Amino acid sequence: MKVLDEVKWNGDGLIPAIAQDFESLKVLTLAWMNKEALAATIKEGRVVYWSRSRKKLWRKGEESGFVQKIKEIRMDCDQDTVLLKVQQLGNVACHTGREVCFYKRYLDEQWIDSEPVLVDADVIYSSGSRVKD
Amino acid sequence: MKVLDEVKWNGDGLIPAIAQDFESLKVLTLAWMNKEALAATIKEGRVVYWSRSRKKLWRKGEESGFVQKIKEIRMDCDQDTVLLKVQQLGNVACHTGREVCFYKRYLDEQWIDSEPVLVDADVIYSSGSRVKD
Repeated sequence: MKVLDEVKWNGDGLIPAIAQDFESLKVLTLAWMNKEALAATIKEGRVVYWSRSRKKLWRKGEESGFVQKIKEIRMDCDQDTVLLKVQQLGNVACHTGREVCFYKRYLDEQWIDSEPVLVDADVIYSSGSRVKD
Repeated sequence: MKVLDEVKWNGDGLIPAIAQDFESLKVLTLAWMNKEALAATIKEGRVVYWSRSRKKLWRKGEESGFVQKIKEIRMDCDQDTVLLKVQQLGNVACHTGREVCFYKRYLDEQWIDSEPVLVDADVIYSSGSRVKD
């Protein structure tokens, strides 16, 4: 696909992908995509990342059910980052059971946990294998 | 600073930094920070990136005037990305003169420019040296 060739993949064949809730506009997650992941995301209408730790495609929500459905895909001026506007099923994006991954807030020379855990991680990943990048 | 040591810098000593407008919640830019850049951002209350192309600190807006003032800094669960809530001076984040860097929208197997140019780039960088990462 021509749109994939226009992306400037890094030396590892990856780009950062930012997921943003299309309604609340909260930034949910930053994860990574390779060409195959972006192609699958476009084709399937749900977010498919590349898991750097597991070295395989990661269909977000494949174990947790917390699928991210695509509403819009944008690329930046440098053509090396994508912004995904998504519908976050289950209202939980983070593997810790929080709404968003960006829950550590800088305050007075500390990172303070600033978002509640909505679902216990053991409940999310009852199969025992936690999915994270 | 202890907060800097808690960040998981990549092999190049960098992390991605997402800038989001603190009022509109639009995602403006993704750029990169090293330890020195994050320390300067915290100290100065304005966004300081690391320019990978110029290999030096990049005080956002230092030439254009389009400074990003810090309202909040967050880190993600993996401790390898930061989210910066900012006040974008001049309402232009992108070196192309657009409000946001994410202006190429995927539509029907094409990337379509979907945001107007608010200020001509030649006007922004009248000194002739364009600042971009």
